[in-house]
Amino acid sequence: MVFWKRLFNPPSDSVPSASPSQFKGELLEVKGRADSQWRIFFSTERDIDLYELEELCDAVGWARRPLRKVKRALAYSFLVVSMWEVKGNQRRLVGFARATSDHAFNATIWDVVVHPRCQSQGLGKALMKYMIRQLRSEDISNITLFADPQVIDFYRRLGFVLDPEGIKGMFWYPD
Amino acid sequence: MVFWKRLFNPPSDSVPSASPSQFKGELLEVKGRADSQWRIFFSTERDIDLYELEELCDAVGWARRPLRKVKRALAYSFLVVSMWEVKGNQRRLVGFARATSDHAFNATIWDVVVHPRCQSQGLGKALMKYMIRQLRSEDISNITLFADPQVIDFYRRLGFVLDPEGIKGMFWYPD
Ligand SMILES: CC(C)(COP(=O)(O)OP(=O)(O)OC[C@H]1O[C@@H](n2cnc3c(N)ncnc32)[C@H](O)[C@@H]1OP(=O)(O)O)[C@@H](O)C(=O)NCCC(=O)NCCS
Ligand SMILES: CC(C)(COP(=O)(O)OP(=O)(O)OC[C@H]1O[C@@H](n2cnc3c(N)ncnc32)[C@H](O)[C@@H]1OP(=O)(O)O)[C@@H](O)C(=O)NCCC(=O)NCCS
Repeated sequence: MVFWKRLFNPPSDSVPSASPSQFKGELLEVKGRADSQWRIFFSTERDIDLYELEELCDAVGWARRPLRKVKRALAYSFLVVSMWEVKGNQRRLVGFARATSDHAFNATIWDVVVHPRCQSQGLGKALMKYMIRQLRSEDISNITLFADPQVIDFYRRLGFVLDPEGIKGMFWYPD
Repeated sequence: MVFWKRLFNPPSDSVPSASPSQFKGELLEVKGRADSQWRIFFSTERDIDLYELEELCDAVGWARRPLRKVKRALAYSFLVVSMWEVKGNQRRLVGFARATSDHAFNATIWDVVVHPRCQSQGLGKALMKYMIRQLRSEDISNITLFADPQVIDFYRRLGFVLDPEGIKGMFWYPD
């Protein structure tokens, strides 16, 4: 039996809600049997192992990017959320998303990814809900993104609207 | 006679290219007769009078925003470009745009505006070209924006592409 416990449905006594040692994060859910449980955590820490992040992006087929620039992008993003599978003292990066912002009105979400092994289990949805909740708690009113065609419906289910009032996403390309 | 001098076509001897005292900026062009010239400058300084900016946004019919939040948005934007009409020691804010960014890959341009009195004279185009040049000089490869329906063609002429490869702009709305 696999069971799920949601963020707003706190785990029972048998499931300690504290992070494992050396892990700062927020518990999303507990999975597996009692004798071999693992937990899914969110974290907003930025000291992510860049090679581990690259591996995650590789796994969904994204083009490699210079690690120096990835490091800079993480440092200057407004919000960085990573999702971890934790078992005992081991942890694995299974999801990621980040947002740029003016810290006042607008935020734009980039690089939303869930490891293929963990997809279709509600984790992408939970990750996006966590992002939205964090951005709203910072009083950001305009949450935006640019969706690849194959994931438009994924975002639509989360309350994202396509081209509202005819507003269109545009990208600049050099001549 | 009204004459124009472009940024990459530096003004002749008769037109000093230095900013007027107490004004840090980059000369775009000189307009008017020799005896009553005015100049258009760009600036990336952030200490813009918020009331003057509000007046400019009012002039194009945008909804008012709390100045406290506008101030924060300017401070946390990656790039803020203002456009000034300068005559002697007087200056007037005639254009504005800003961009958020992760300082590495992506930038998103917001709040592009030219005062109605100054529209349709190529200033909006010059402002956008200046923004693009600045962002490119910072090694930003992905320049994006969300265009209101009535200005899509304005951006298209500047090299912006609508929904490239089916990528769509989306906005989140609370239930
Ligand atoms: C897009 C992605 C993050 C979704 O993560 P996920 O964990 O598989 O998604 P979930 O299981 O939480 O799905 C949530 C809901 O969206 C739906 N959904 C998931 N992926 C979808 C897709 N590509 N198209 C349409 N619906 C989708 C699910 O069916 C589910 O619907 P439900 O709430 O009615 O049950 C993941 O597939 C991914 O990393 N893809 C590769 C990278 C990518 O394309 N990122 C987006 C770049 S813009
Ligand atoms: C959009 C805006 C910044 C354009 O500034 P501008 O100084 O009038 O534009 P320019 O004179 O530089 O025009 C450049 C080119 O775009 C064209 N253009 C300008 N406004 C246009 C519009 N609304 N639709 C289509 N084309 C337009 C011009 O004809 C010109 O074409 P050309 O290069 O072939 O001569 C200005 O109209 C404005 O501030 N509008 C109100 C605020 C707004 O809507 N901002 C955009 C929010 S997304």
